[in-house]
Amino acid sequence: MNSEAVLAPFVASSMVGERAQVNIDLGDRSYPIIIDRGLLQDPKAWDGLPPGHLALIVTNTVVVDLYAASLKQALASQYDRVEVCVLPDGEEHKNWQTLQMIFDHLVDDGADRRTVVFALGGGVVGDMTGFAAACYMRGVPFVQIPTTLLSQVDSSVGGKTAINHPRAKNMVGAFYQPLRVVCDLDTLDTLPAREFSAGLAEIIKYGPIADPVFFEWLEANIDALMSRHTQTLRIAVQRSCEIKAWVVACDERESGLREILNFGHTFGHAIEAGMGYGNWLHGEAVAAGMVMAADLSVRLLGLSSTYRDRLVRLLERAQLPVQGPLLKPQREQSVEDYLRWMRSDKKALAGDIRFVVLADWGKAITRKAPESLVCDTLNACCA
Amino acid sequence: MNSEAVLAPFVASSMVGERAQVNIDLGDRSYPIIIDRGLLQDPKAWDGLPPGHLALIVTNTVVVDLYAASLKQALASQYDRVEVCVLPDGEEHKNWQTLQMIFDHLVDDGADRRTVVFALGGGVVGDMTGFAAACYMRGVPFVQIPTTLLSQVDSSVGGKTAINHPRAKNMVGAFYQPLRVVCDLDTLDTLPAREFSAGLAEIIKYGPIADPVFFEWLEANIDALMSRHTQTLRIAVQRSCEIKAWVVACDERESGLREILNFGHTFGHAIEAGMGYGNWLHGEAVAAGMVMAADLSVRLLGLSSTYRDRLVRLLERAQLPVQGPLLKPQREQSVEDYLRWMRSDKKALAGDIRFVVLADWGKAITRKAPESLVCDTLNACCA
Repeated sequence: MNSEAVLAPFVASSMVGERAQVNIDLGDRSYPIIIDRGLLQDPKAWDGLPPGHLALIVTNTVVVDLYAASLKQALASQYDRVEVCVLPDGEEHKNWQTLQMIFDHLVDDGADRRTVVFALGGGVVGDMTGFAAACYMRGVPFVQIPTTLLSQVDSSVGGKTAINHPRAKNMVGAFYQPLRVVCDLDTLDTLPAREFSAGLAEIIKYGPIADPVFFEWLEANIDALMSRHTQTLRIAVQRSCEIKAWVVACDERESGLREILNFGHTFGHAIEAGMGYGNWLHGEAVAAGMVMAADLSVRLLGLSSTYRDRLVRLLERAQLPVQGPLLKPQREQSVEDYLRWMRSDKKALAGDIRFVVLADWGKAITRKAPESLVCDTLNACCA
Repeated sequence: MNSEAVLAPFVASSMVGERAQVNIDLGDRSYPIIIDRGLLQDPKAWDGLPPGHLALIVTNTVVVDLYAASLKQALASQYDRVEVCVLPDGEEHKNWQTLQMIFDHLVDDGADRRTVVFALGGGVVGDMTGFAAACYMRGVPFVQIPTTLLSQVDSSVGGKTAINHPRAKNMVGAFYQPLRVVCDLDTLDTLPAREFSAGLAEIIKYGPIADPVFFEWLEANIDALMSRHTQTLRIAVQRSCEIKAWVVACDERESGLREILNFGHTFGHAIEAGMGYGNWLHGEAVAAGMVMAADLSVRLLGLSSTYRDRLVRLLERAQLPVQGPLLKPQREQSVEDYLRWMRSDKKALAGDIRFVVLADWGKAITRKAPESLVCDTLNACCA
């Protein structure tokens, strides 16, 4: 746990006691990410939000029983009314019908432009609530309280909100920044092991693409992370947010550099879609996808295979898959399926498949790859 | 027709021959409004748009037969494919189901972030298409081609896009700026007289709130406008866009000054809602609403009644209603209904009714009004 000193800050962060704060600098849309245990119950975590008559907590059927009461109580001192909107749980509900439930609640509650909306839950709740807040009256303030490891390190930064189109993931959405992100590490205690590991995949990702020192720190601390040790978790979440903030600050509207955050995601999306959404968790698909992207980097750019192998070992210790599944019983057909899914990815422009690959360990770039090399990687990395 | 010289420009505008261009200055989201006849067929009107494989024209069942072929032909020289998405016509279709038709079309067409979306139609088409463009992949470029007088002077400036919630108008939307607005005055030739007059209501509005000289010019030129004389129309559209641009530039996100654009709208919304949406056109309701707002200004702020009476006469010459309807057969119940609808307006904060009133002729402000004065106005201005 003494490796913290070697991690130089990417962005303005501060520590108040054991509490970490990462400041996302976006001019008049700047906001802080607060990371600690016990935040839900702590009035100080909610200080300084805009006053209003009404707060609406949006959550789902699983999270509501665990944390809505604590949050409601904490907010009661600042808002005349605190209402709760409970959405069905699961990616399959990330659609307009569910979004409409939030709008209905806001209209029924008599929400106006000063109503503050709180997203309490994982990525699906955050994406939908953020999009609803972006659209209701063309924008009302919202606060994110991510309750999964994945959403704490992934949705806290970037302002991306969306719902799925029946035929395309995250196809309809908005860039919309929260007023504040509150990551209460206590909420991770109730997270199933499989989801916890899926969150670690996105944390591990930040090493190969941007920060070899962080990767070494993860290698040294993965067991403490797996046992959900508070200070180790806090550092991992903080560092991930810092790196993502640095990348996003360079490219808020996703025109270039920000693509490196999709390391492992082109292969990963093919796994998720090819296996049917929900069968592989997003983080699991990204884990296997990162191994593929590292393997492609070895073939395409001459990256040392040592790095790919270190990535495999760390992912294994995090209980994550390191091989892609066969999408069809026949290997040849499976490769065809992967290529087809990757060509239809939202980020593909006019049929080209571009990959985020490693020019060096800690330095990601985007590059088109010859189909033959991609096939070699798919053959080597699927089982 | 020689009154043009007395109109000093509010914003950077220019004339190329008879063609007017109003430049909306919003930093990196700046765009021009081009106003002339014959623009749909003129390649120069479409020069300089971003290149792309695909253009999607969104229009409705009425406009498609009139103008889609011309536009499609003009765009064919710049885009490999030009597709057309035809929406049902009417405010009652301004909802998620219709918006979904645009998303379906974009997905089916394989649209990516470089696809340019063209809104060809009135306010409903513009509002929905703009909102779809704002949300698809979190934002694709779009161009507005307003084909009604109302949308040319109202939707061209301000970046407001939206759909209706089943219980509240324009409740779900985005601020999103077009790349360009092309106002082809030819499209006004096919506009029914009633809709043309409704558009004039919004043009006339700019006099009392901001520009007494423009009001005098309208008094002198209303007959030429009613006969749809080209140069007179061009001046009226240009001047309206200039004034709206000046107001919006002061207040892009609608926090203060921009409210003056709602002169007549608080009363007007009550008329539209109370009579059932679609029975009174928006512009008709605004016309009667402006008379009420002027009358309230006389009672509340001592505005000279001469101005109210001049407004009434000009609206009458534009074939617009100058009295509100009774919302219930009993006058007393009608007044109650007006108050109830006005209290539920989106712009009402926590039950207060604020009105845009005239502190002086050409100077609008927002002010709460005692209910007794509002009742006096309702009694005086409804029949």
